[in-house]
Amino acid sequence: MAEPISSRTAISPTRTEDFSEWYQQVIRAADLAENSDVRGCMVIKPWGYGMWENIQGQLDSMFKATGHKNAYFPLFIPLSYLQKEATHVEGFAKECAVVTHHRLDLGPDGKMRPAPSAELAEPLVVRPTSETIIGSAFSKWIESYRDLPILINQWANVVRWEMRPRIFLRTSEFLWQEGHTAHETQEEAIEEAVAMLEVYATFARNHLAVPVYHGEKTESERFPGAVQTLCIEAMVQDRKSIQAGTSHFLGQNFAKASEIKFVSRTGSQEYAWTTSWGISTRLVGTVIMTHADDDGMVLPPRIAPSHVVILPVIPKEEFRVSVLEGADKLCAEIASHRYADEPIRVEVDRRDFSGGVKNWDWIKRGVPIRIEIGPRDIASGTVALYRRDQPAKIKALKPSPEAVAELPAILDEMQNRLYSRAKSLRDANTVRIDSKADFYDYFTPKNKEKPEIHGGFALAHWSGNPDVEARIKDDLKVTIRCIPFDPEVRDDEPGKCILSGEPSPRRVLFAKSY
Amino acid sequence: MAEPISSRTAISPTRTEDFSEWYQQVIRAADLAENSDVRGCMVIKPWGYGMWENIQGQLDSMFKATGHKNAYFPLFIPLSYLQKEATHVEGFAKECAVVTHHRLDLGPDGKMRPAPSAELAEPLVVRPTSETIIGSAFSKWIESYRDLPILINQWANVVRWEMRPRIFLRTSEFLWQEGHTAHETQEEAIEEAVAMLEVYATFARNHLAVPVYHGEKTESERFPGAVQTLCIEAMVQDRKSIQAGTSHFLGQNFAKASEIKFVSRTGSQEYAWTTSWGISTRLVGTVIMTHADDDGMVLPPRIAPSHVVILPVIPKEEFRVSVLEGADKLCAEIASHRYADEPIRVEVDRRDFSGGVKNWDWIKRGVPIRIEIGPRDIASGTVALYRRDQPAKIKALKPSPEAVAELPAILDEMQNRLYSRAKSLRDANTVRIDSKADFYDYFTPKNKEKPEIHGGFALAHWSGNPDVEARIKDDLKVTIRCIPFDPEVRDDEPGKCILSGEPSPRRVLFAKSY
Repeated sequence: MAEPISSRTAISPTRTEDFSEWYQQVIRAADLAENSDVRGCMVIKPWGYGMWENIQGQLDSMFKATGHKNAYFPLFIPLSYLQKEATHVEGFAKECAVVTHHRLDLGPDGKMRPAPSAELAEPLVVRPTSETIIGSAFSKWIESYRDLPILINQWANVVRWEMRPRIFLRTSEFLWQEGHTAHETQEEAIEEAVAMLEVYATFARNHLAVPVYHGEKTESERFPGAVQTLCIEAMVQDRKSIQAGTSHFLGQNFAKASEIKFVSRTGSQEYAWTTSWGISTRLVGTVIMTHADDDGMVLPPRIAPSHVVILPVIPKEEFRVSVLEGADKLCAEIASHRYADEPIRVEVDRRDFSGGVKNWDWIKRGVPIRIEIGPRDIASGTVALYRRDQPAKIKALKPSPEAVAELPAILDEMQNRLYSRAKSLRDANTVRIDSKADFYDYFTPKNKEKPEIHGGFALAHWSGNPDVEARIKDDLKVTIRCIPFDPEVRDDEPGKCILSGEPSPRRVLFAKSY
Repeated sequence: MAEPISSRTAISPTRTEDFSEWYQQVIRAADLAENSDVRGCMVIKPWGYGMWENIQGQLDSMFKATGHKNAYFPLFIPLSYLQKEATHVEGFAKECAVVTHHRLDLGPDGKMRPAPSAELAEPLVVRPTSETIIGSAFSKWIESYRDLPILINQWANVVRWEMRPRIFLRTSEFLWQEGHTAHETQEEAIEEAVAMLEVYATFARNHLAVPVYHGEKTESERFPGAVQTLCIEAMVQDRKSIQAGTSHFLGQNFAKASEIKFVSRTGSQEYAWTTSWGISTRLVGTVIMTHADDDGMVLPPRIAPSHVVILPVIPKEEFRVSVLEGADKLCAEIASHRYADEPIRVEVDRRDFSGGVKNWDWIKRGVPIRIEIGPRDIASGTVALYRRDQPAKIKALKPSPEAVAELPAILDEMQNRLYSRAKSLRDANTVRIDSKADFYDYFTPKNKEKPEIHGGFALAHWSGNPDVEARIKDDLKVTIRCIPFDPEVRDDEPGKCILSGEPSPRRVLFAKSY
């Protein structure tokens, strides 16, 4: 808990020393989450959950502003439901947690066990996603075109059994939202899928300070049962890609599986066109890998659980009362100001630890702004302000009202800087590649002990041949992240597949990924 | 969907005809929720979920204002965890959903099944409550008294297998919040349990318009593993009781089970003192049974998903554009006003159904205020305002700005009236009883076909003898709801047990209950 000396960093190892271990250590040092004893399941601690609550609240407003309403569907899916869509069940069967009993009893060895007399007639799957169970509800709710569109969202936990979990990025249980919509026409459903992808991209950019490329997945990376999977892809600091959100056009596949039919304007029976779209607590991992540094977490102000922490400096016991009073007064003043349409989130750290310990604790937690206030500050009406985007010791000593008034602008500046920095890294590491040799060289780590150090994103021609895609994945652990839409990377000029030489209609985005 | 004629009600049967069936029909007519194909699990539809979102948001603010932070813990509890506290596992064993496999495969019959090769070494229980898994986390988080108190809350789904489910009131899966706190001293933990019960009572009174009695449960009704269970009890319209929230002082039971220890101020190792407290989607059922009437749902304004619905009246197609414009303008005006510290929630019903259908749909949904606006209103600058607490046809025709300005006061009046009406019913049906004959008569339905028609709450002497409690339960299906704290019903004057004649220290509250 001691203050790192100038030549050292608060997190060890550093990003360049061992990115994967650095990530774990940031999460521990910032008190964001921890692994539980249940394999692959995490405990999200208050500081990490605070990020999720902000993500949730802000996205929820965006969903509601686009006409969606929240609802809640059962956690358990009858096995027979999941089987209604063949590709779907095949895609999820390998990672399903299955409930088989509804009671415990004492076994002959005197230990508790699933009661043999309480075995379920039909096993229940803990939802890995809810297309089938929500489809079943939609089939009851929809009678005619007048009932369409149905625009529903659910905030929930889902379970996909993970053999190689990684906290926040790949956990057996995770929290997410899943939008599910049903429409009269194919066009309207595609519009919805595209519009929600855009909501995600806007949210990533403006709230998480994470730049993303939009695109469409190839068939091999498509959601099981979808006609089209759209995605946003972010580059994190080891230049790997993270799929940060997906939006699926499901065609009539699930409508047929679940009998979601309606009487059309002309009186005929039609299957509805459906979509689904989701983001999850994996976004928290994305934010950590994008913004954290070798001193710990760095929080984009928009989603920081607290924007400002006030650290009372109490050199002698006799000052305690007056300093804490001053801190509380300052806290109330700050909370009366707004940033990004919400009151500034501020707290006073009254914990009984030394100033150095508390200071470094907050640096590691990544709070955007720290304000120290002691007896001399109170006497002179000043405060000492520290920013997480500046070295730990750089302070601005200012008259208190001036410091408070400047907070929204500082937070805004920090938010924008984080975005610019992330975008610069990504843009600098997104390249066009036109030969197989260059492509393999780009993705081959120069240091075998640090496989995370490689090129980045590559825009290269691909014919559409899934064998080529599979070969690249086998050889390099590189996949097609998407067929990009963004004007700055989209390239519809035909060319030749870098591997097979086959004609290619456009470049696609290749990367290693989480 | 036709408008009921004056002598009929929108809901059939009525409350007095068949309370239980009336409850189901209100939920259906108000589009609040429905049973799913998964036994005991419900689908919470947008209008019902909107109530829950308001309950959640408003309670969450109260939790945060009292120093609690949200976190998230795993859905799955290893069987060995649950067994750590003997009373606890015994209390929940009969209703546990148990996960035994983590994969599906194709069986020899070509059907999907839990893969025999993927059986878990230790079964996982889907959390019925989280004391043991949160206790395990607390044991890691707490080292010294400086880390205390820990004040955590979790919003989550839990599963308790129900053989006799009743929508919202008793479902196999339900949504809830569970507070979990750890303290340095017994006094502080008891204070916390009492304080959170008070938060619940305040919330029930001021937000749900539900009056409650506070008290302590007898041993037979205590939470499995608790030292003391405090509760709030509400009376619904059939004069039965609903336990609307509980707060448990857990002593050191779970601290010992989960090894939650800390170094005290004097340097000794001590077990922490813990509490837990919760409310659930059962509150939605409580609100329905308390306030709904024979025309459907009646929403307390504080938790209404919409306070106001605007119904555009379009007598001829040529008026469509101007009327919808007028409706949108009115909607924006209303949304700029505030009620109970939040913008008024208002929506325009643009659905392509007839005016009568839409009107009755909103009556059944229980929206507090309906506003009709048509071409003549737009021409004259008036609106027609209808209140859910007045007969369907009573309208107030007012200049639009006046109607808008009055909304907060009307909503406030409606909220208060609902509370007063519920309190009058409860007070009129809470009686002191001093003889066994009167007690049995009070709780014996006069009409055997309508067992819900009985007395109500009875304050009677009880010696503390659990045999008497069990006998009354067997004979009458009446239980001790609590040993009440409220000055208006608490009675510490000693007396004699109505059944056994044994000396009794005080009266307790008896009732039939859900």
